[in-house]
Order: sequence, then C-alpha cells, then structure tokens
Amino acid sequence: MATPTVDTQLVPADVLRDWAADVFATVGVPSTDSQVAADVLVTANLRGVDTHGIVRLPHYIKRIQSGVINAQPNLNAERNGAAAILVNGDFGMGMVVGAWAMRLAMENARNYGISVVGVQQSTHFGAADYYARLASQANMIGMSFTNTGPSMAPWGSKTAFLGTNPLAFAAPGGIEGGITMDMATSQVAWGKLMLAARAGKKVQFGWATDKEGRPTDDPAIGMDGLMLPLGGYKGYGLALMIEVLCAMLTGADYGPHLKDGKGVGHFFIAIDVARFMPLEQFQERLAVMVQEIHACQRAPGVERLYVPGEPELETQTRRQREGIPLPDDVISDLTELGNQRAKPFRFGANGFGA
Amino acid sequence: MATPTVDTQLVPADVLRDWAADVFATVGVPSTDSQVAADVLVTANLRGVDTHGIVRLPHYIKRIQSGVINAQPNLNAERNGAAAILVNGDFGMGMVVGAWAMRLAMENARNYGISVVGVQQSTHFGAADYYARLASQANMIGMSFTNTGPSMAPWGSKTAFLGTNPLAFAAPGGIEGGITMDMATSQVAWGKLMLAARAGKKVQFGWATDKEGRPTDDPAIGMDGLMLPLGGYKGYGLALMIEVLCAMLTGADYGPHLKDGKGVGHFFIAIDVARFMPLEQFQERLAVMVQEIHACQRAPGVERLYVPGEPELETQTRRQREGIPLPDDVISDLTELGNQRAKPFRFGANGFGA
Repeated sequence: MATPTVDTQLVPADVLRDWAADVFATVGVPSTDSQVAADVLVTANLRGVDTHGIVRLPHYIKRIQSGVINAQPNLNAERNGAAAILVNGDFGMGMVVGAWAMRLAMENARNYGISVVGVQQSTHFGAADYYARLASQANMIGMSFTNTGPSMAPWGSKTAFLGTNPLAFAAPGGIEGGITMDMATSQVAWGKLMLAARAGKKVQFGWATDKEGRPTDDPAIGMDGLMLPLGGYKGYGLALMIEVLCAMLTGADYGPHLKDGKGVGHFFIAIDVARFMPLEQFQERLAVMVQEIHACQRAPGVERLYVPGEPELETQTRRQREGIPLPDDVISDLTELGNQRAKPFRFGANGFGA
Repeated sequence: MATPTVDTQLVPADVLRDWAADVFATVGVPSTDSQVAADVLVTANLRGVDTHGIVRLPHYIKRIQSGVINAQPNLNAERNGAAAILVNGDFGMGMVVGAWAMRLAMENARNYGISVVGVQQSTHFGAADYYARLASQANMIGMSFTNTGPSMAPWGSKTAFLGTNPLAFAAPGGIEGGITMDMATSQVAWGKLMLAARAGKKVQFGWATDKEGRPTDDPAIGMDGLMLPLGGYKGYGLALMIEVLCAMLTGADYGPHLKDGKGVGHFFIAIDVARFMPLEQFQERLAVMVQEIHACQRAPGVERLYVPGEPELETQTRRQREGIPLPDDVISDLTELGNQRAKPFRFGANGFGA
C-alpha cells in the first residue's frame, strides 16, 4: 500500500490506461486488444499490485518488438461448445489470450454449469486475478492459473524447475466486486523481489535463496537464485499441480523448456453459481460469512480483520479517486518509452493529461 | 514412515479391510457401503497416512451409533446429467457420500469433458486423496476438497472459524497410480497433532497456537487451540476458497455453524484428459517431467528427489507386502471395539487372521 511521497506522482487510472493502449497500438496490437492489455495492467495498479502493473509495459513492448510476443494472434478453440476446451494462444499477449479464453469459459459455463479452458502457446498474462474476476463480475466463480518460467526448485533440490505458478480465485459476493485472491505458490511473488531490488531494500529470509540454495535477504541475489515454495513442500505440490493443469494437460511448454517465457500455458475455470443455488442466496450467505469473520476476536495489535480481496478493494477505491502513485523511476521509464513510441508520457510532474 | 518396532504389530491390509467392513455392517451400514468406507480407511494406512486410517474407526462407529452419521443415507443428485451437480449427502458417512459423488463427477466428465459435484449434508470423509485418485485411476484428473470443523482463525484473529480444509489432486501418470497430493491448508493436518499427542511427543512451533493465539509445541494444547494456516495469510486464503466451494456454494454448514462435524460439504472435480490430448501423450509428458525432476541437482544431505505421491506409493508397495504397522494402543482400541461389536480383532499379537 504505497502512500504518495515526494518520490511518487499520482496519475489518473483512465489517463494511464488510454496512454498504455495507445502505446500498444503503435507496435501493431489491434485496438480492442490494446485496450484489454492496458486494462489488465492498470487494474493491477489500481488494486495495489504494482509488481504486475504499468511497470511492466516497457518489457511487453520490447517483447512484441523482438517478436517473442505476436501482436496479432489468431486465437482458436478446439472442440468449442463442450465444457472442456483447448485454446491455442498463437504466442499472443497473455492478457489478450487470457481474457479471450476466460470469456469462452464463462460462455460455456452458462450452458453446462461449469467450463474449463486450457491454453497453450501463450505468454505472460499479468496478474492472475484479472481473469478470475471477469467471471465473478458475471456472477460466476472464477479460477485462473498459469505456469511461469523456472524459478523454484523441486523440494530437496537446488535446480530451478518450476515456476512460481500463481492461482487466483474470485467469488461473486461478500464484498463489492467479490471475494478475490491471487497468490504465487512461492512464499512471495517474484515481483516483490523486483520491487525491493528497485527500491534498494532487503527482503525477509525465507523468500528466496542464492543459486546454491543458501538463504538470502538480498533481493538481487534472490532474483538470480531460487524462489522458495509457499509453506515448504506443500507449495512445491501446489506449483506442480498448476504445472500439470497449465502445461502437461494443454501441451504448453514447462519449466526448463520455457525459453524467455514464450509458450506458457494457462488454465481457467468458470462455475455458474445459479446451478447450485439462486445467486441472491449465495450472495447473502457470503455476506453473512464476511460479517462473521469481521466480528472475530482480533489478535493484539490488529486493528481490523480482512477477507481476501478487501485490502485490494480499499486500494482500488482510493486510487480510482486519487490516481495511481508512480515512483519517479517508473515515470522515467515510461517517459522514455513514450518518447520512443511517439506517445509522450506527459503526466505526473507536468500535470495530468497535459 | 513408521518402521515396525516392538510396540507395533503388522496386520495385512486385506484382513484389516474385511474386518473394518464387518464392523461397519454391525451398525447398519449396507454391505457395499461398508466395503467402501473400510477401503477409504485402510487405503490411508497403506499409503502411510495413519492419521486418517483405521485409528478413526471407533470414532466413526460411535458417531453412527449416536445418530450423528446416517448409516443408510438416501443419496440424490439435483440436475443430474449436467456438468455441474449438487448432491445431498443425507448425513451419510463422508466416505460413502464422497465416493458416490466423485463417481458421478467422473461419469459426467465422460460426457462433458469436465464435471463438478458439490455436496451438502455430509460428514467427515477421511483422506481427501482417495476421491481424487478414483478419478486418476479412471484416466482423469481428479480434485477433491472438503470443509471441516473450525480450527483456524482468520488472519489477524484468534477465533477458530475456518477448518483446515484440505485439497487433493491426482493426475493419471508420472508414477504408478499417478502423481497425487493431499494437503490440509493449515501448516500441518490436525491429525498430526493427534498422533503426536498419542505418542507423547512435542511438535514444531509454527504448527499451532494455544486458545489465545500464543505459539505452542505441545500438541494437546494445540489441539485445544488454533491451527496455523499454510505459509501465513495465503493458507487463510486457500482455506476460505475451499469453504466457498464446499459450503457457501453447496448450502453446507461452515465454520462456527458446524456442530460436531455434521453437515460439512465437499467439492469434486473430474477432468477427462482425452479432451485435451491423447491419454498416452499426456502420460508420456508426465513421465518425462518426473524423470527431469528426479535428475535435478540435490541439496546437500538429500538422497533422492520425489514428486508428490511418490513417498506414499513407496509406503503402499511396502505395506501391501508386509502388512500395516499398528501401534499397540491402536490395537488395543480396535480390540475393544471388536469385542463390543462381536467382531473380535484377533490379528497382530495373536497371529494373522487367527
């Protein structure tokens, strides 16, 4: 929850989203796809997940320019019309492929009560919760998974093999926008090391090790070393489960075979709540449970209790109103990118939308 | 991985299974259901998950006798024939309800590629992996979830609210019987405290707290206190996700509303691998990945690397051959139960099947 400081400037979400879409368009991404990709990034910022936000735009643009990402993928689904579908992402931007695939799952869940869509030949799709929340916004339960480049060792090993493979879940109710969670199956997301390294900060022991598996609190060494799995061997199991769903089952690349993050797989689940009980009843049940959790006894020093997605909702509400705080070094990167793409980034220091 | 000692006797799995089924039958459980329930328990022992094995038989019998569990439930499915189905367990034994519900999911997955079955009004179903493995044994990917009685506090709280809600996953390939995992969303399963308490052993700090949320290494105090979630707040999120799937969505009871473990819910997923790729290709991919993991560089002191389910498979192979090691106090409990039910437990000390 970054609070604006002298080193941070506030940029309105809409302005940032429009500008990012314009930049995507300059490298050949079709208009609608540009808007989707920009929305995935800026929504992450709105919700306080800055590791997966606009900070990554220069990286995505570079990957499109170098041909790693296909700006104009030809998306197609095999066996469309069944409840289980395989999609070939044609190496398009993960955000575009992911949103398309989850919408397909939602459409089919209307017919069958549940649908899963597996995706092969995709690329990094940003924050996983975006796709789960597409479903919850349509009154479905959504889940999304992706594999990622190798950065965790199998339990007992010191070879990077599995990704920090995240899972996200969203349910339509309980709080505004729905209960939402999004977690890497490593103890923390790799992006937290990246942000700490940028900020010149140490990290906790237990997040990562060096290349030889030795504990470290230096984020740069951790980024170059191994991420540690969530809670020990269970996190290894969860990461492997996600590798099976996203890669083994879909035909996507995995672990050491992923070159430069190209060819990852995703897995999306949409469940139509109304098949189980009337939506209003489900939402009432969730609302009561959230109230009960809020009313639980607090541990010493804890001011209030949250359900998953509530901190992000608070941040989203505030940032929607106040703007998205961007550190000066990010502003500087975006300004450089804007100049390169002839889409000047004139926000922040020089005034909004100037 | 218990090694037989002077305090442990070996009982053949088949003998134990038949005897347990006989005991279930004496309290009114129909023959087929008795065999299913006995198989769930003894399979847990075979795979080394003794916390969920025959040690719990006296407890299940007592609950049937006291009417908490319905020995002859009338199982029925709403909207059968769709890919998403709700089952009412009629407060039957969770093992019977769970196996029935997963088989229904598998049947429907053959038609739709994927199926989910939610269950309400069930009871404790034993080890979650049994149901996921029913699917993997039929060349499907299986997942199973259940909520359980309140023993974990929402993050930041010291009120028991969520269960240690486990998730299990099984994929048909990679190793004999398939890659399988089964984990509580607490740092460890509650049953590990129970076994440690029986054995008079301390447990690790970080597994549980006392009632006031203070760390403890005394399993008895932990059993009476709070379990800690897997890896911190992420485990809280996972447990809540499972509560939503198993209880919010199905209409089952949850958290503080669960009286005596009656009325829990389950959630089962079956995915037909062949909808995504030919089964042989999937199995070949899994086999290669497992080989690659085995070949990763080992950390100092590690003799070999495992994929999830491999240690359990080793134990299963050994115990199938040698018998299931039962500690004397368990033998004593089973002997007492056998005498009560006029199904004498004459194994172990007095020779096999005497």
